[in-house]
Amino acid sequence: MSSPPVQVRFFGGLGEIGANMATIEVDGRILVLDTGLTFPDAEHHGIDVILPDWSALRERAGDIEAVVLTHGHEDHLGALPFFLRDFPDVPVYGTSLTNGLAESKLTEHSGVQGEFREVAAGERHQVGPFDLEFLRVTHSIPEGLATALHTPHGTVLHSGDFKLDQTPIDAHPTDLPHFAELGDDGIALLLADSTNADTPGHVPSERTVGKTLRQVFGDAEGRVVVTTFASHIHRVQQVVDAAVGAGRKVCFVGRSMLRIMPIARDLGVLDYDDEDVVQLHEVDRLPPQQVTLVCTGSQGEPFAALSLMAAGRHRQVTLDHGDTVVMASSVIPGNESAIYRTINGLTRRGARVVHTGSADVHVSGHAAADELAFFHNIVRAQAFVPVHGEYRHMVAHADIAADCGVPRDRIFVCENGDSVLLEDGDVRVGQSFDAGRVFVDGLGIGDVGDAVLRDRGAMSEEGVCVAVITVDAHARLVGTPQVVQQGVVSAERAEPLITKAAEELATALRGEEDRGSEPSLLRRQAVETLRRYWREQTGRRPVILPVIVDH
Amino acid sequence: MSSPPVQVRFFGGLGEIGANMATIEVDGRILVLDTGLTFPDAEHHGIDVILPDWSALRERAGDIEAVVLTHGHEDHLGALPFFLRDFPDVPVYGTSLTNGLAESKLTEHSGVQGEFREVAAGERHQVGPFDLEFLRVTHSIPEGLATALHTPHGTVLHSGDFKLDQTPIDAHPTDLPHFAELGDDGIALLLADSTNADTPGHVPSERTVGKTLRQVFGDAEGRVVVTTFASHIHRVQQVVDAAVGAGRKVCFVGRSMLRIMPIARDLGVLDYDDEDVVQLHEVDRLPPQQVTLVCTGSQGEPFAALSLMAAGRHRQVTLDHGDTVVMASSVIPGNESAIYRTINGLTRRGARVVHTGSADVHVSGHAAADELAFFHNIVRAQAFVPVHGEYRHMVAHADIAADCGVPRDRIFVCENGDSVLLEDGDVRVGQSFDAGRVFVDGLGIGDVGDAVLRDRGAMSEEGVCVAVITVDAHARLVGTPQVVQQGVVSAERAEPLITKAAEELATALRGEEDRGSEPSLLRRQAVETLRRYWREQTGRRPVILPVIVDH
Repeated sequence: MSSPPVQVRFFGGLGEIGANMATIEVDGRILVLDTGLTFPDAEHHGIDVILPDWSALRERAGDIEAVVLTHGHEDHLGALPFFLRDFPDVPVYGTSLTNGLAESKLTEHSGVQGEFREVAAGERHQVGPFDLEFLRVTHSIPEGLATALHTPHGTVLHSGDFKLDQTPIDAHPTDLPHFAELGDDGIALLLADSTNADTPGHVPSERTVGKTLRQVFGDAEGRVVVTTFASHIHRVQQVVDAAVGAGRKVCFVGRSMLRIMPIARDLGVLDYDDEDVVQLHEVDRLPPQQVTLVCTGSQGEPFAALSLMAAGRHRQVTLDHGDTVVMASSVIPGNESAIYRTINGLTRRGARVVHTGSADVHVSGHAAADELAFFHNIVRAQAFVPVHGEYRHMVAHADIAADCGVPRDRIFVCENGDSVLLEDGDVRVGQSFDAGRVFVDGLGIGDVGDAVLRDRGAMSEEGVCVAVITVDAHARLVGTPQVVQQGVVSAERAEPLITKAAEELATALRGEEDRGSEPSLLRRQAVETLRRYWREQTGRRPVILPVIVDH
Repeated sequence: MSSPPVQVRFFGGLGEIGANMATIEVDGRILVLDTGLTFPDAEHHGIDVILPDWSALRERAGDIEAVVLTHGHEDHLGALPFFLRDFPDVPVYGTSLTNGLAESKLTEHSGVQGEFREVAAGERHQVGPFDLEFLRVTHSIPEGLATALHTPHGTVLHSGDFKLDQTPIDAHPTDLPHFAELGDDGIALLLADSTNADTPGHVPSERTVGKTLRQVFGDAEGRVVVTTFASHIHRVQQVVDAAVGAGRKVCFVGRSMLRIMPIARDLGVLDYDDEDVVQLHEVDRLPPQQVTLVCTGSQGEPFAALSLMAAGRHRQVTLDHGDTVVMASSVIPGNESAIYRTINGLTRRGARVVHTGSADVHVSGHAAADELAFFHNIVRAQAFVPVHGEYRHMVAHADIAADCGVPRDRIFVCENGDSVLLEDGDVRVGQSFDAGRVFVDGLGIGDVGDAVLRDRGAMSEEGVCVAVITVDAHARLVGTPQVVQQGVVSAERAEPLITKAAEELATALRGEEDRGSEPSLLRRQAVETLRRYWREQTGRRPVILPVIVDH
């Protein structure tokens, strides 16, 4: 076979950086699978979002054929506006809903435009040298796609995020017969979602949530407030159905609810009668037992609708005894404290709170371990790379694949920056490349790195102490240095500590003069003196910033 | 009845501050129930530990009769060294294990000593005017106590932390017959643990963990590393038993393991043969299948033994393929990211990791909702205050008590700073007082407050910008200001931004001179100019620190 090997490169989504992005190169052309972003952890001080580092693609800009978006979640399409800023001419393929959500993201980025091309599950498209087939998968957002890429070296199958709900709300389960057919023809390389690979068992059907919702609505006496992810449109559908079934009107509250619901309805993935939905200003005219609010804030985000209600600071909604709040959503790791703070706040207002810890009001969007075994036995891939998950998930998924018969030496647990090559039906590890993460902070993309985060972290723990040292032409101290602190001790206790710090610094710096000080030595001396001083006085290690002023 | 009402005051442990402490006042004398501390959340930048604010007790120092410690957990006794610093002459009552753990804490605080008096479950003691009876409860540490205080106004029962494991490891379940007897005589006021009140069902027995451990040890081929809380001595006992049963030696690793195990063994709550326990330096001589390490780090604490192993930085232990790690511990909210990072690191080293998400290797130490109903029906209290929990837990517990027949108007959901009065068998809400929290940071106790935390938080998100402005005797700018930044942008990109900032600042300050500037106006002008500058240039809002220097 004369064509070069097919190269799969992993830019994000493997390991700790949950911003999904991979590329597949065929005959010198590059297909991008997803352009996701991820959200900062506690150690990412001040960072807004985190992008995969695609700088390895810059010199290949002209070779990028297309972006395929597997579904509409932020960790799969959130980086698209930034990607299109760097590669403005690349067309984007996705379903109508995925494209609709992606386009609505672009409106937040002035000057960035995209050329969107619609595809659908069951279709096959030739995109440049890429022979692409899309398969329907269920997930926690409608219109998820798996992507099969037929190449001269064999077929690569990318699952996207998926689960195997056999009774989904829209009655369109993951298209296992189609997967089986592809398996019959032979899958040379499978890339599949690992998110729940270390969760034993099966994920219950989304319908089980509907049952719980109907019970909650049946029991509720006052208003019912439900929060979930706005993109979880089937969940919203179930809330609307339960509410309407209980004789209630529905009101959508919060920016992303108000942004996404019209798109979903226009595209036919969300269904309700106009008369069943009211605006927020109309809600107060209704008796509480006819009101359902569907709102943002499932993760305790500080300015989301539910968080404001919990804090008693929502301008239009004041919760009260008799109201019921349903948190029909997962607890994303890292958000626990914020979510529990929300629940405590809601409880304090008198609301009854139903959440995943107390009732079956959420199911995961990712297949669990036993379902993944089904999937592997249907696909029967010849080689496998677990994707979409932390390292522990990918290793667990590798074990499942091995249990299902994929040979161990054909299972590759990769990390971002790794690549695999497919040649003549054989898969091997390729060259690795510089992948990583790019921090977005305010207007800056990539101008904050680990050093800045370390500085921010140090100041966040211990505060900062500035010493302004005036010197004469011979670098001799003039007067007493000025010392200023922020975040070391409280303002009311700072005065004597600051005065003493300045005196000790002056003494130390005068002691240095005989040795013919120059500014850099002065600076070092100031840092050492003040470090010692604060440690002795407070046990703290503020960041010391000396500034030398010429008299 | 002539004696004044019994007053119960809540200093901590109710709501968000999990540092348990309450007082009961009888005839002008004060009994302190627990002196716990709590650990900082992400927003408590740089804080080491958080104490309840007991300043309301300061003017009553001479009236404090005793401290009773219900059990040996940090959130019940961790503040004792700080408490004894303020109230050095107060005797401390607890079981032998609780006192042993408390005394070993005191050794970390030089100059603080305590007078410990031993009590045991089943005993009755007259302590000043306090007629105290102690009852055995099971919990995730041995020797938990409930405390019944018999007063002329009725009996107050405080559950301590408890669960109702009917088959505990030491075969000593919570003493329900004794609780029933007290109930027969009448409980005027019950204070009971609410931690799991919104968790449906029952907590499985600690023995179920032993079963899983034996399976894991049976399957393991290489070394087995188990982490749990060092204070969870029954859990450690089960690990030791499973290890020895599988023909392995046990080695304790990590500071708190090495501190607590000898105390526990001396006091007879932990049992093992000398020949079954080895030191870390002896481990390498043993084949892997004969090794069990019991170590600290269950919460992903950065410098704990398991965390170092996960990062490949433990000096004596290098994990490898074939090793098994068991995380036989809960995931404390807020620690998820650190714990998952540990699991990912362990997996990367090749270890198989068994944790609560994948196997039954942990059970809670607190009774769940259905068990609390048992408890209320046995105690039959006339009035009830839920304690030990966040607001949502206390409200859930109030509902359970009401379902079990405690009249709604005799259930009081309190917060820290509230008090209740018991008079003649009747309970009512008393005066509230200033409770709160005291931050310990380095050597300082209480010198860091919310304002300092806000400053630290601001710097952690956006960095800091210092402007040194030299002025003449007329407050006119001399030369160009010096601008220094830390944590706003990376050092390599800072130079041109800083230079331009200084120029813009100079222009702005010169423009002010005509208006007869004085230092405070100059300062304000500098802050405004630099705020605008950084926002326009970077979209960030660093903390601006202007320093005026006289020429």
